Order: sequence, then structure tokens, then C-alpha cells
Amino acid sequence: MILEMAHIEVKAGAEPAFEAAVAQAAPLFAAARGCQGMELHRVVEAPRRYILMVRWATLEDHTVHFRESEAFQQWRALAGPHFAAAPTVEHTAVVFPAG
Amino acid sequence: MILEMAHIEVKAGAEPAFEAAVAQAAPLFAAARGCQGMELHRVVEAPRRYILMVRWATLEDHTVHFRESEAFQQWRALAGPHFAAAPTVEHTAVVFPAG
Repeated sequence: MILEMAHIEVKAGAEPAFEAAVAQAAPLFAAARGCQGMELHRVVEAPRRYILMVRWATLEDHTVHFRESEAFQQWRALAGPHFAAAPTVEHTAVVFPAG
Repeated sequence: MILEMAHIEVKAGAEPAFEAAVAQAAPLFAAARGCQGMELHRVVEAPRRYILMVRWATLEDHTVHFRESEAFQQWRALAGPHFAAAPTVEHTAVVFPAG
């Protein structure tokens, strides 16, 4: 399992609309190849920053299959207008507890 | 629920010892007030960077009760020698899906 963490800062005042856009986009992730779940987290210390956490079966399910899909375009059309800057994305793998 | 994310970069070559230290320290977290789980993630794009993710019932369970505990000192004694720099810590709260 690979965890995508997309760090997203939204425009001032855009928090409610961004959160609604994520809820609206959730079925796009749920239907994506290899997607095993999605959560939106808000950073306590910086409330305009969010972390979208998406679990994927493989790295390529995100970086290739999802990013090249129509669903990705739809996700960006919904959420992108609220971004203050381009998101930064990293991926992690769990090392403890061992799977 | 509050998620603590501690971003930890370890010294070159210290990865196995750090991972073993986290496994050894796991019972310290499991026994801590309000601790609901702990995972160690490794960053795919930067393998010397880890993210320790700890779920806490409240923010203060981490920032007050754990940090002022003997268990925190034991955790730092185990893992700290492998840190390349002081960890950076942030906390998040889940906003989607709604609890």
C-alpha cells in the first residue's frame, strides 16, 4: 500500500468551498483503479493548509493511471480553483507496523 | 481524533537502526494517555525521510501529557540518536469523511 499525501493550501476564505469540492470529488477517487480510501485532513497549526491522503495499491495507480485519467481532470476542475498554489505531493509506504 | 505527523530525517545509514528503535518504542506510545495508534511511514521520494503518524484523542494528549512524560524521554533516547535534525511536527484533524 502506498499513501499519497498532497499538501494543499487554499485561498483565504475558500475553505468551505474547497471542503465541499473534495466531498463532491470523493466518488472519483473511490472509483479509481487501485484506490483504497481517501481522507481530507486540515492542519491544526495552519488552517488554510490541508493534506489529502489517498491510499493506493501501487505508486503507479496514482502517478500513472489516475493522473492520466479523466477523473483527475474532473478532480482538478472541482478543487483546483480553490488552490492558493500548486499542491506538493509525496508518497509514503508503511514500515511499522509491518504488514 | 488528532493526527500527529512528525517529519523525521535520519542520518545516512541509520535507517535500519531507526526503524528498530521505533519498533522498540511502540509500547511507549501504545501505553500513552489518549494514544489510538501509531504508524511509521517512509517517504518514497526521499528514503531518509520518515513520517511518524500517531493518532491521539486530543491535541493535549500529545503536546502536554505525552511530551511531559517519562515515555517521551524514553522515546527520544531510543530514536533521537538517529535524527539528522530536529523533527518538525504538525497536527491534523480529519474533515472528510465526516466522523
